[in-house]
Amino acid sequence: MKIALAQLNYHIGNFEQNTQKIIEHIGLAKSKGADLVVFAELAICGYPPRDFLEFEDFVALCEKAAQEIAVHCTDIACVVGLPIKNEVLAGKDLYNAAYFIENGKVKAVVRKALLPTYDVFDEYRYFEPNTKFECIGFKGKKIALTICEDLWNINDNPLYVSCPMDELIKESPDLMLNIAASPFNYRHDEDRIQILADNAKKYQLPLFYVNQVGAQTEIIFDGGSLVFDETGTVKAEMKYFEQDLQVFDLEEIQNVKNKYPQPERASDIMQIHDALVMGIQDYFWKSGFKKAVLGLSGGIDSAVVCALACRALGPENVMAVLMPSKYSSDHSVKDALDLVNNIGCKHEIIEIKQAADAFDSMLAKPFAGLPFNLTEENIQARCRGIVLMAMSNKFGYVLLNTSNKSECAVGYGTLYGDMCGAIGVIGDVYKTQIFELARYINKDGEIIPENTIVKPPSAELRPDQKDSDSLPDYGILDQILFQHIEMQKGSQAIIAQGFDEALVKRILKMVNLAEFKRYQTPPILRVSPKAFGMGRRMPIVGKYMD
Amino acid sequence: MKIALAQLNYHIGNFEQNTQKIIEHIGLAKSKGADLVVFAELAICGYPPRDFLEFEDFVALCEKAAQEIAVHCTDIACVVGLPIKNEVLAGKDLYNAAYFIENGKVKAVVRKALLPTYDVFDEYRYFEPNTKFECIGFKGKKIALTICEDLWNINDNPLYVSCPMDELIKESPDLMLNIAASPFNYRHDEDRIQILADNAKKYQLPLFYVNQVGAQTEIIFDGGSLVFDETGTVKAEMKYFEQDLQVFDLEEIQNVKNKYPQPERASDIMQIHDALVMGIQDYFWKSGFKKAVLGLSGGIDSAVVCALACRALGPENVMAVLMPSKYSSDHSVKDALDLVNNIGCKHEIIEIKQAADAFDSMLAKPFAGLPFNLTEENIQARCRGIVLMAMSNKFGYVLLNTSNKSECAVGYGTLYGDMCGAIGVIGDVYKTQIFELARYINKDGEIIPENTIVKPPSAELRPDQKDSDSLPDYGILDQILFQHIEMQKGSQAIIAQGFDEALVKRILKMVNLAEFKRYQTPPILRVSPKAFGMGRRMPIVGKYMD
Repeated sequence: MKIALAQLNYHIGNFEQNTQKIIEHIGLAKSKGADLVVFAELAICGYPPRDFLEFEDFVALCEKAAQEIAVHCTDIACVVGLPIKNEVLAGKDLYNAAYFIENGKVKAVVRKALLPTYDVFDEYRYFEPNTKFECIGFKGKKIALTICEDLWNINDNPLYVSCPMDELIKESPDLMLNIAASPFNYRHDEDRIQILADNAKKYQLPLFYVNQVGAQTEIIFDGGSLVFDETGTVKAEMKYFEQDLQVFDLEEIQNVKNKYPQPERASDIMQIHDALVMGIQDYFWKSGFKKAVLGLSGGIDSAVVCALACRALGPENVMAVLMPSKYSSDHSVKDALDLVNNIGCKHEIIEIKQAADAFDSMLAKPFAGLPFNLTEENIQARCRGIVLMAMSNKFGYVLLNTSNKSECAVGYGTLYGDMCGAIGVIGDVYKTQIFELARYINKDGEIIPENTIVKPPSAELRPDQKDSDSLPDYGILDQILFQHIEMQKGSQAIIAQGFDEALVKRILKMVNLAEFKRYQTPPILRVSPKAFGMGRRMPIVGKYMD
Repeated sequence: MKIALAQLNYHIGNFEQNTQKIIEHIGLAKSKGADLVVFAELAICGYPPRDFLEFEDFVALCEKAAQEIAVHCTDIACVVGLPIKNEVLAGKDLYNAAYFIENGKVKAVVRKALLPTYDVFDEYRYFEPNTKFECIGFKGKKIALTICEDLWNINDNPLYVSCPMDELIKESPDLMLNIAASPFNYRHDEDRIQILADNAKKYQLPLFYVNQVGAQTEIIFDGGSLVFDETGTVKAEMKYFEQDLQVFDLEEIQNVKNKYPQPERASDIMQIHDALVMGIQDYFWKSGFKKAVLGLSGGIDSAVVCALACRALGPENVMAVLMPSKYSSDHSVKDALDLVNNIGCKHEIIEIKQAADAFDSMLAKPFAGLPFNLTEENIQARCRGIVLMAMSNKFGYVLLNTSNKSECAVGYGTLYGDMCGAIGVIGDVYKTQIFELARYINKDGEIIPENTIVKPPSAELRPDQKDSDSLPDYGILDQILFQHIEMQKGSQAIIAQGFDEALVKRILKMVNLAEFKRYQTPPILRVSPKAFGMGRRMPIVGKYMD
């Protein structure tokens, strides 16, 4: 039996395009001699459809698309994911399901049992968990078809009290198929391979796994669909961050070594780089925009975002705006211009002094006698925000936000100032990782000027300001933040690791107090196991760690 | 048996204060002769604790507080809600639980079975559903104790496949207790009474129900704890939007008519008014602030917010900033000043022309030859945002956002301009309801100037602008929005109700396109069954209804 895995980039709710893409790839799989072509979880509507699922006509459009797809399943069978109605009155209204389509008709329906409801996942918000399991007969083989999380309950501290494959194995299937929408983070590819290999080993079955690829606003799918033999050995690994369709022969998977090519494991930073480029690209094409604008300060964060945007959209579609203030150093403008010259994007220089002075003058009466402080720093940052949004509004540019994860975490940024933007490109990348990313971007020659990388970080909002005036060394800060955010450790547990008590408490308090700012931050491209945004839901008015 | 219901205002994660409050009310209940005092769901940590629950020490602090409370439960028993660990390896790590405490010790533990995971609720994100049920023996009576949603599976289209009371009733209990954290919306009090009455009737048992009161950022609890006899008749109804403790005699509830006072049903607008005042108050005290600032345009939205803020915080703590532009009408400043005089709050007048002109001049080169458009309108709105944030930063005022639900819905507002603020006061109140709210505020004499109420709404960002230039009549707009947002109807279903097809499609498209703006909007006090914010989770880059 020849099985095609179709790893495609869907667009949420774009039924016309998703359906057309699926039908095209049914044709492609057929032309390559496949008996069966497998598409991802919720392929028909894209993942995650979120509260679109609460609209009846959205679910009806999914069913309509499936019927349109079914017509094309002649001489080839197809597995495709979609939400379907729960016909039983009690319980949630929908199932997260897969259709097995053969001879133009839906031959079997599989429903997802384990519904991820943690981090960025909300599946129990919409779906009833399945409790009935049955294999699918096809060409003399029994297929155990499951959906994504259904195979993830295999570790030592299982999240669910049941395990779908423990039921399906009772029918002695010949192979496992799993369709997924498994979002990327730079640690996830190895976890994924391990969990799937454990399943192949435990059930002694070959396993075919197909993932989505592409970004849906902040959630990025990396692809990397996989095939295992019954010993848990990876027999094939599909492309990362690209669409891909490959056809595998079941007998060869079981019997032939090194038949199918596998990519090399990429470094964390390389994965983050590719994920962010895809994240930008998909945000733009899926929302119908082509051109980006960003503020270019001469610092490393905006330089990295500028470079990523140029790779994603082409330098001709990127407008960098330099907005020096009276506190900007000479090297800032030079460093920014060096980048622009290296990279070939468009630029404007707009000094903000005039606007900042206007606000000083307008506020002279209420502020009479009060010293320059954070207020005036914020005014400058917000003047830049207005300039960037004006460029965005006038020319249809999408504003890219350039805040990094370290400053998002501790609130070292100005709301409605440098926190403006439609999408946060590096808001899930710690400052220490930004330096690595800059070096990676420069690996084939200088793009980001050396001086931008080596000079001490500064917001340049008052004379001789340095980040280190307000923040601990990024090397220490990022370690503590990682323990708190990614590892979800409280202060006592972090202090027990040997970090300074006062520093840990100060940092955690800053993180907590910045919730109100982060609530209003743009969506952030997610590349880590715990990003700010929909995967981290904290009270704003809460006292814990305050 | 005498049962005290303690309806209290908790602060999420403020263990010290919550514990002290609970202990005080144990003493108060004891002094009033109660045998048992009942506190709400998750009373110890406040509801909803959200991802604080993922920190082990947060859960440990809950247990520690419970042990401290237990010490005070002598000569009185107590029911109190808290999260507890799931000691079984498989499944989620926590239960949403209640301790039944007697003689200083935890005598029984009840776990919640039905976990709301819809709208603003995320309980299955954290908690394992309970599957074992047992009544609690106390003073010769058998108590069927359940937690909030456990009693809500009683309607014709049940959300869950099981029903906890169907299990507990097998032990023939004498009464039902239900502890809740049931958020307010202006339609919820009647639903709540109906559902609880249906339970009392179905199981033929008296029912004691205690709710939380107070606002947790956007989620508002209205209190209104209830007692029913076994026929489903309401025997007592506690205060709304206030803390309350009342003691009820079980025998009298069953046998004596009209023993306990019940409030009159309040109108929707009166409830919304009281909820918003409490929402402002609690945001301030729980986050440690006292003073508010807002922009006062002379229009009805900011006037209503100003009046609500003065009621919540006292006029001496409210700073209204008038920021006329060259497009502001004469009556705008007069109307705003009339309000300030009526209400007695502080005010400043800061003209924005100077800053707007500065931006025009700074952008003259890139904008050369291009006409005045939305860009320049937005610049004005954003200049106002900067002024308000500067006042906030300099003086420690919290900025109140004054956007209404109609404009939030269709994106008729400027991101980083009039969409600034720490908390959205009326973002869940449609424009047509704002007029009712203004009339209600004026019921005992003019506070909001008549001209503010009767003049045609305008953003005053270009000459002679009216809202009606860009938007349909609010009477029609709000009806269509209500069908789409609250009733979750798609375009076809709304058109089928008789609304104009082109208009419906235009409005739904506006709603969808505004997702990216709403993502960055402040948290909005929730008063409707479907508010923007955590209860409505839409894709940003999605194509459905585009």
